Amino acid sequence: MALIVQKYGGTSVANVDRIKNVAERIIREYDKGNRMVVVVSAMGDSTDKLIELMNQISSNPDPREVDMLLTTGEQVSIALLSMAIQEKGYKAISLTGSQVKIQTNNKHSQAEIMNIDNTRILKELDEGKIVVIAGFQGIDSNDDFTTLGRGGSDTTAVALAVSLEADRCEIYSDVDGIYTTDPRMIPEASKLDFISYDEMLELASLGAKVLHPRSVELAKANGIKLYIASSFNYKPGTLVGGIEHNMEKRRNVTGVTVNKDEVKITVEQVPDKPGVAGNLFTELAEIGVNVDMIIQNLQRNQKNDITFTIDKESLKKYRKQIEEIAYSIGAESIYIDEEVAKVSIVGAGMITTPGIAGKMFRILGENNINIEMITTADIKISSLIHEKDAEKAVKVIHDGFELDKI
Amino acid sequence: MALIVQKYGGTSVANVDRIKNVAERIIREYDKGNRMVVVVSAMGDSTDKLIELMNQISSNPDPREVDMLLTTGEQVSIALLSMAIQEKGYKAISLTGSQVKIQTNNKHSQAEIMNIDNTRILKELDEGKIVVIAGFQGIDSNDDFTTLGRGGSDTTAVALAVSLEADRCEIYSDVDGIYTTDPRMIPEASKLDFISYDEMLELASLGAKVLHPRSVELAKANGIKLYIASSFNYKPGTLVGGIEHNMEKRRNVTGVTVNKDEVKITVEQVPDKPGVAGNLFTELAEIGVNVDMIIQNLQRNQKNDITFTIDKESLKKYRKQIEEIAYSIGAESIYIDEEVAKVSIVGAGMITTPGIAGKMFRILGENNINIEMITTADIKISSLIHEKDAEKAVKVIHDGFELDKI
Repeated sequence: MALIVQKYGGTSVANVDRIKNVAERIIREYDKGNRMVVVVSAMGDSTDKLIELMNQISSNPDPREVDMLLTTGEQVSIALLSMAIQEKGYKAISLTGSQVKIQTNNKHSQAEIMNIDNTRILKELDEGKIVVIAGFQGIDSNDDFTTLGRGGSDTTAVALAVSLEADRCEIYSDVDGIYTTDPRMIPEASKLDFISYDEMLELASLGAKVLHPRSVELAKANGIKLYIASSFNYKPGTLVGGIEHNMEKRRNVTGVTVNKDEVKITVEQVPDKPGVAGNLFTELAEIGVNVDMIIQNLQRNQKNDITFTIDKESLKKYRKQIEEIAYSIGAESIYIDEEVAKVSIVGAGMITTPGIAGKMFRILGENNINIEMITTADIKISSLIHEKDAEKAVKVIHDGFELDKI
Repeated sequence: MALIVQKYGGTSVANVDRIKNVAERIIREYDKGNRMVVVVSAMGDSTDKLIELMNQISSNPDPREVDMLLTTGEQVSIALLSMAIQEKGYKAISLTGSQVKIQTNNKHSQAEIMNIDNTRILKELDEGKIVVIAGFQGIDSNDDFTTLGRGGSDTTAVALAVSLEADRCEIYSDVDGIYTTDPRMIPEASKLDFISYDEMLELASLGAKVLHPRSVELAKANGIKLYIASSFNYKPGTLVGGIEHNMEKRRNVTGVTVNKDEVKITVEQVPDKPGVAGNLFTELAEIGVNVDMIIQNLQRNQKNDITFTIDKESLKKYRKQIEEIAYSIGAESIYIDEEVAKVSIVGAGMITTPGIAGKMFRILGENNINIEMITTADIKISSLIHEKDAEKAVKVIHDGFELDKI
């Protein structure tokens, strides 16, 4: 008798029919003799509707009250899902974050889980009930409701799996697994049957819609394997786990991603004094700008060109301050290029396999795609290219590393 | 510095503009130096929408899960109202029934309040906050959410006023007070500036939309005066209190009501044996039929005709069982008349004023309205008449007792 934690995302419970479908899926596992703990998100766009109401009242609402408002979304879906399970003749009970005592700190809208009290859940499981728990929410030390921020329900599911020492943690949504690249862009993309935590984290831009990095980190830290699959069919999904689970099949390259959300900023002709780059990036961090790729070129005239990428949203929000910071460190001019794309390959095996980076650059070169910036990490290599080449780059890399044959 | 409990009904917070209006009304009292505790219902038809979803899932949902679902309605409105108050620069905090620890028994959907913990409310008031509390809901000894049933938010407000020893308890809705009769039917109806608890209870059919009998009983038992007024204007409303507050102005007749929701059932030719009527009404009570008026006529042949009235909903639901019960006690036939109306006059002064009943019957007679049944209570006299005469009866009684001159 295994204890299984399942999580169903908002699209999986977006309407009554889908809720009934989810109830059937849960019962299917329960009927095999498993103890079932189910985490649910708010129905489809219900959270958006609440936010719309809120925005008509306040442009800057109190985060405590925002959490009070938004936690109702999951409360509706746990009640309806429990009813749907009961309607099929099974015992079920819904529990909110406060009833489970999912204790968090008091950072409203981005709270972190400190502790979960298993008592109530185990009591209900012992009575043969399917336990349906509201995702995304907890309670702080004042008994105030908190929400966990983006990817919150995934995090709830993994945290419960850790706390309950669950045998499996299954994450269901409208996506049926992790692919070698976006299958809407490259139809030949292969679904991976396994991916390591680290690869999953590096593939965040691919996988974030499926599984938030935060929940992957929590799973990794506690050795909880995650099974990612669709709630709309029974096709096999993707297992996310430690690399040791897949020794024999370690791949050099597991996936290719592309990110068109970055812009390239070149701060030109900065005097080459010690600490200049340090100042630049410290000040950017202080105003809340997250820098991704960085290169520095020392010119013959003892001046530096410093080039870095940030996300488009940050540029929109902080453009003025970024320019002020650049001029304050002595830059002569600033060049901003929004027409860039970052193509990355990720693979746990590339650490021990020489030549992967070279192969990526050669493939791009042979296809007349110019590389503007490069960064490498243990299991990820990224190239910044012109935005117009993005799809082509993903296609030729996917072909070149034979990812369609995984 | 008075402590005021205000309650705003669902129509008063049905949309964003109305929520903003309510925020202004609360602030107006707060600015006078009062400590404000505000109870709110769910927004307009939001509860109906949840019930609609629920009905698509189950025809007989678990009451615990129904309460889990429905308590979200008030949670939404308290969050939005708190934001609206804060937006105007005032401190506010929303609290659910579970956070206030409105302790109830575990009768889901019709829970009764056992105890309220003032600690959190007083703490927030002491910090200068306007405290916004979800009506209609509580928590049982298992930490499960409960709802109080019809009129629940009124009951929450009165219970809080009792627990906090509030100076005033004000109930706001879209109705601006208690009238001598329904002003939509009789335009001459007068608004009462005062009505006693007992009169209010007897006028339930008139007043139920404004104030649920249950909350009136709680107010009466604890001597809490209720002020009933509209949230849409600042016209004076009606004070509901103990009769001692109005010694000089005790009225013989305070109001006239009509109820077209009853049907008259005559169980004909029942053998006149001891206990027959007792059996009949005990068995009706056991299947859940609530009987209102009763008459029994002994015929010359030692057989009884027993006539009683019940509400139309009960007839629809239990017609078959009612007929079975009637024949089982030996009735020869059953006659059901759905075209009846019950006209009642209510007045605390009628106990000590002879001739009120006679005057009512004379007025009806003079206007050719036939009386089919009569019941009298301490402060209420009811006559069952033909449905077609209902409006005319109310009009002539209202005129006859000069209620337009109150």
